[in-house]
Amino acid sequence: MHGDKLPVIIGLDEYRGDHGKASKLAHETCGLVTGYKIGLPNILHSKSLGEAVRRACRESLLVADLKLADIGHTMRLVASTVLDWADAVIAHAFVGVEGGLDQLKELLDQNDRKLVLVVYMSHPGARQVYDHVYRELLGIAKRMEAWGVVAPATLPDKVAEARRILGGETVIMAPGVGAQGAEPGQGIRAGADYEIIGRAVTTSPDPLETLRRLARAYH
Amino acid sequence: MHGDKLPVIIGLDEYRGDHGKASKLAHETCGLVTGYKIGLPNILHSKSLGEAVRRACRESLLVADLKLADIGHTMRLVASTVLDWADAVIAHAFVGVEGGLDQLKELLDQNDRKLVLVVYMSHPGARQVYDHVYRELLGIAKRMEAWGVVAPATLPDKVAEARRILGGETVIMAPGVGAQGAEPGQGIRAGADYEIIGRAVTTSPDPLETLRRLARAYH
Repeated sequence: MHGDKLPVIIGLDEYRGDHGKASKLAHETCGLVTGYKIGLPNILHSKSLGEAVRRACRESLLVADLKLADIGHTMRLVASTVLDWADAVIAHAFVGVEGGLDQLKELLDQNDRKLVLVVYMSHPGARQVYDHVYRELLGIAKRMEAWGVVAPATLPDKVAEARRILGGETVIMAPGVGAQGAEPGQGIRAGADYEIIGRAVTTSPDPLETLRRLARAYH
Repeated sequence: MHGDKLPVIIGLDEYRGDHGKASKLAHETCGLVTGYKIGLPNILHSKSLGEAVRRACRESLLVADLKLADIGHTMRLVASTVLDWADAVIAHAFVGVEGGLDQLKELLDQNDRKLVLVVYMSHPGARQVYDHVYRELLGIAKRMEAWGVVAPATLPDKVAEARRILGGETVIMAPGVGAQGAEPGQGIRAGADYEIIGRAVTTSPDPLETLRRLARAYH
């Protein structure tokens, strides 16, 4: 939990750059949820959507879900474009440290922004690769002193393993709730701090009512 | 080689959305190189830079270097934004197939666009993770029938392995030439079809002269 707010981060991808919808939802839900995840589908349609959400929710945690996976130099160029509004930036642990995440981390540290690393993904095909390197990726998160990691609510054992290896200080965000099949609360019970919920809220005819219904899973 | 052009794809990242510079370089070099790689640092600064390069070079291979690494649904949302100008889209093999690359491939096939998968990266830290799963990632590229893969010119043995496993049909693009330390021609000699050259050309005071100098490595 984050104060008295729900341990929920709303993923706004489905709005695809629609400022009006994103700002309206943010405005209505700021007091209820912990924060918002703004990914490439929004940023590519509208560079200023993140700033619009920031104006609507000064105190919320805004996560730029860039899913960065490039050499350090390129990740820095990309991350630089969201520093105006983002508190945290998501990159892939998969990239590794030297000439990769080390250079990104330096930029984020200098600007007092948080690094969040994907250590496992939420779709079925993720197992094929991630199972071979999960310990390695958790080790990279630890070595980088990442503020947070992303591990899937759809695979509670992976969330639990992340918590065991990383200890209590690292924030765990768990996507996969709703459209991808995890039940609300499933990630939190396994050890996550926040669940990321996207389409279940953003495509709902009544997002507020949906959030209030989901909220029962967190009490 | 690609007709009588150099087996070179110029990476335009360093221009960070500067239409004028990108169009000028493209206009001057269309007849000399195979194509251009336009990545997130450009696209985030200017959504229409890809279209500007397309106007300058109708026949060139334009690669959208999105380095996609997300669930299928999100990768489709992002890839949709470059279909206007891109011939090919780069994603990460490490995402895996089900609910990931399969959904992206479907979108690209429907739009007659090419899938290019990163199977190994060019920075030093890549070894830490990629060495554990390289065969797995080459297997995914094969299973997805990817048009091409990205493997680093800085590690010729990895390029050679990709060629051995994937056979002669799959296009191999090798980054890492110039700023990252590989010599021009190093990737091609190891089995790549194209070398991706970025900063060495784009930050040169005389890009054309630099290309002509590099050209000697390819004869």
